[in-house]
Amino acid sequence: MLLLTSRDNPNIKNVVKLKKNARFRKQTGSFIAEGLRVCVDAMLSNAQIEALFVTNQALEKYAEQIDKLASYSVKSFTLAPELFELISDTETPQGVLCVIKTLDKTLQFGKINNGGKYLALDNVQDPSNLGTILRSAEAFGISGIILSSDCCDIYSPKVVRGSMGAIFRLPFMVCDSIRAFLEDNPQLDSYAAVVDSSADKITELSFCDSCVAIIGNEGNGIKKETLEACSHRFTIPMAGNAESLNASVAASIIIWEMIK
Amino acid sequence: MLLLTSRDNPNIKNVVKLKKNARFRKQTGSFIAEGLRVCVDAMLSNAQIEALFVTNQALEKYAEQIDKLASYSVKSFTLAPELFELISDTETPQGVLCVIKTLDKTLQFGKINNGGKYLALDNVQDPSNLGTILRSAEAFGISGIILSSDCCDIYSPKVVRGSMGAIFRLPFMVCDSIRAFLEDNPQLDSYAAVVDSSADKITELSFCDSCVAIIGNEGNGIKKETLEACSHRFTIPMAGNAESLNASVAASIIIWEMIK
Repeated sequence: MLLLTSRDNPNIKNVVKLKKNARFRKQTGSFIAEGLRVCVDAMLSNAQIEALFVTNQALEKYAEQIDKLASYSVKSFTLAPELFELISDTETPQGVLCVIKTLDKTLQFGKINNGGKYLALDNVQDPSNLGTILRSAEAFGISGIILSSDCCDIYSPKVVRGSMGAIFRLPFMVCDSIRAFLEDNPQLDSYAAVVDSSADKITELSFCDSCVAIIGNEGNGIKKETLEACSHRFTIPMAGNAESLNASVAASIIIWEMIK
Repeated sequence: MLLLTSRDNPNIKNVVKLKKNARFRKQTGSFIAEGLRVCVDAMLSNAQIEALFVTNQALEKYAEQIDKLASYSVKSFTLAPELFELISDTETPQGVLCVIKTLDKTLQFGKINNGGKYLALDNVQDPSNLGTILRSAEAFGISGIILSSDCCDIYSPKVVRGSMGAIFRLPFMVCDSIRAFLEDNPQLDSYAAVVDSSADKITELSFCDSCVAIIGNEGNGIKKETLEACSHRFTIPMAGNAESLNASVAASIIIWEMIK
């Protein structure tokens, strides 16, 4: 492993830019994953790891796993904790980070014609919410996730970390608009989640075997044009204030009810 | 309203200490709530507001509501945005914060003998999780929350904010240990949430009208001594990795299944 000693090293600068800049992630087709577990998850899911960065402390502590990561990765570097802090996105860095090629999941969506239960996210903005939604979707067995192009970047470090590796294992695709996706996939029955006590209660629905539930923006809900293209509207009945659920909790309850 | 201009003003120093220090909150019997909505929630729930702090910008923007808050509060102060940043716990402060007397909810728990569905938290550590759990508990209509004394402080600013005001409306109590609480309340049937595929599936349970579900620590689950005092064990069935749910999502699914 090569030792990096300068903050001006182009490899370091590249990671800092990948951490902060969604457009740069898109241009270069790479993103970062931080933490031993999520890096190992990436390897086990056959993601292409372009570079591995570890501190000597991490190298000693997790020798065996880092050895495997290093031989799997195209390049690998060690660096001092002070330099690692520059590339890290966490408050107490574990000292393991890798740069990964963005994932091509188009093929996984080929089987969408055969049915399955999908989740579509219309302009979801908070990376912590998106990460948690991916995690719940995997835990409960969603077939795949569709994101509108105006959702927050699925490759942002917070999403990757919050998903606990689900980003590597779960089929997902980004499309121009959820409305266009629904029009292209009329075989899927569509259910829009709304905050409206007159809508059908989720507890009284039965989701069919080929369906998609649509979840909207944290503040403004589903776009009007998307809503018009949905066949059903439903709501999560609540005791108190109708808007009082955390967005990732609401999404997780919906996934749970779709699947169980 | 009094204008505060110095960071050495004892009122400012008091808030900074309340923000950072759980022991100081306990000693003084007060805590802080930040943001217009949560401060108004406190007032509407008849909490005792000891002091209100607002920037002039907030005063102009939310004149009517801040007037009401100011006449309800014992003391009220204006201060410059630079000073407000000192007392604020958020990245982009709204400019409204109040100091509130800790809530005495003992009385609300008097009716526990008449039944109801309760949630007990055994050493839950993350303030964001606790805030979200309170929010879900209120939304779905839980009768009350019991916290072990080693949970994170319910009055920490992150919990208050994350609860979206539920902390003011939801009955809760802190007890020495969940085991002692269960032994003191044999009228409640107790259900321990565990990660164990051989436990009863939550989907196959029926929670009776007088019951309590117990949720454990994010990493280590429920304490052994607590588990021994529970009558039932149950689990949330999952498709993938058995540990792959966010703690507040798992708690919310449990609340949802208990209540619906």
